[in-house]
Amino acid sequence: MPKGVPETVPDDGLTTRQRRRLPVLAVNTGEGKGKSTAAFGMAMRAWNAGLDIAVFQFVKSAKWKVGEENTMLALNRLHEQTGEGGPVQWHKMGQGWSWIRSNSDTEEDHAESARAGWREIARRLQEQQHDFYVLDEFTYPLHWGWIDVDEVVETLRSRPGSQHVVITGRYAPPALTEAADLVTEMRKIKHPMDAGRKGQKGIEW
Amino acid sequence: MPKGVPETVPDDGLTTRQRRRLPVLAVNTGEGKGKSTAAFGMAMRAWNAGLDIAVFQFVKSAKWKVGEENTMLALNRLHEQTGEGGPVQWHKMGQGWSWIRSNSDTEEDHAESARAGWREIARRLQEQQHDFYVLDEFTYPLHWGWIDVDEVVETLRSRPGSQHVVITGRYAPPALTEAADLVTEMRKIKHPMDAGRKGQKGIEW
Repeated sequence: MPKGVPETVPDDGLTTRQRRRLPVLAVNTGEGKGKSTAAFGMAMRAWNAGLDIAVFQFVKSAKWKVGEENTMLALNRLHEQTGEGGPVQWHKMGQGWSWIRSNSDTEEDHAESARAGWREIARRLQEQQHDFYVLDEFTYPLHWGWIDVDEVVETLRSRPGSQHVVITGRYAPPALTEAADLVTEMRKIKHPMDAGRKGQKGIEW
Repeated sequence: MPKGVPETVPDDGLTTRQRRRLPVLAVNTGEGKGKSTAAFGMAMRAWNAGLDIAVFQFVKSAKWKVGEENTMLALNRLHEQTGEGGPVQWHKMGQGWSWIRSNSDTEEDHAESARAGWREIARRLQEQQHDFYVLDEFTYPLHWGWIDVDEVVETLRSRPGSQHVVITGRYAPPALTEAADLVTEMRKIKHPMDAGRKGQKGIEW
C-alpha cells in the first residue's frame, strides 16, 4: 500500500485538513514484544511535532521502562531549554501516582490506584490537558475488571478536541479494540528468553 | 511470564553477566504498523544506556520518518552537549548515502545503492563501530534479491563483540528470522486508512 494514500475517501463532509486533525485512538496488544516500545516510538514522533505528551504507566513495578522514561524526560528537558519538540510528563502507578497518596500494597489498593489513575486521565481528557497520551499496560486493570471498560470507551469516544491516545497491553477488551481507530497485535515468533537468555542492558531495559 | 526470568537456564558455560552482554539480532516483520516505530523505541532505550547508535534507512523516500529522525538527532545533540545517553547517526539511502555519490534513479541504481549501504554496514560491524544498529526496511532489498541473504546472515552471525542489530520490514526471509534471537510479527487488526482517513501529523509522520 502506498503510504498516505487512503483506499477509499469517506463521505463524511470533512476536508482533508480536518481529517488530518482527527484524534487517533490506538491499541497495541498481543503476546509479543514491542507493544509499549512502539507506543514510545510514536511518542518520539509526537514530540517532534511539538505535541504535549503524558505517559501513564499502569504497572506496580515500573523499573523495566527506565530507559524510555529517562529518554523521554531528556526530551522534555531539551524542550524546556531550547523550545524544540513538546513537553513530556511521565506518571507511574508503581510508585503511587504523584497526585495522590498511595502506600499500602494489597490487591484492593492496586485496583484503587488504577481507578485513581483513570479518573485523573478522564479529567485531563475533559480539560484537553495534553495532545498525546500513552496509557501503558492499561489493558490489565480493564481485563481484571478493576476499571469499567464501557465507561472508558464512552469517555474516550466523547473526548473533546484532537487528543491522541495510545493504549498498550495484552488482553485488550473487545469493546476497546472496537472503539479504536488503529489496532495492532504484536505476535511473538521467537524470543531470546525461550533459550534461557537474560535481558540485555540497553535492549530489554 | 514474569519479566526477566528465563524459562530455562542454558548449559552454555556462560555467567549471567556474560549472557547479559550477548549481542541481540532482532527482526520486526509482518503487515502491521509499529515495526520501525518499535525499533526506534528500542533505540531510545539503547540511547539511555549510553550505546552508540546508527540508523540506516533502506528506503528511496525517507520523508515519512522525519519525526523519529529529528528526535533521535535531538538526542544526539543532547549527548554532545551534556554527555547524557549515547551518540546517534542517521543515514538515509533515499538521499544517497552520505559516504557515496548516488544520484540517478533507475531500479538498478536503487539495487546498487542498497548493496553499497550493506557493504558499509558490514564494514562497520567488522570494525565494531557502533553498539546498536537499526537497519530500517532492510528486508526489502533482501526480498527483492538485491542483496544476498546468506551473506548477510553469515556477516551477522560472525559479527565481533556485543553489537545489537534490529532489522525491520515485511517479508523477512526465513534464513534471516532463523538467525535472529528475537522475531516479532506486527499484525494489522485495524487501521484508520481502511476508513479513508489521512495520516495524522504527530501520529503518522
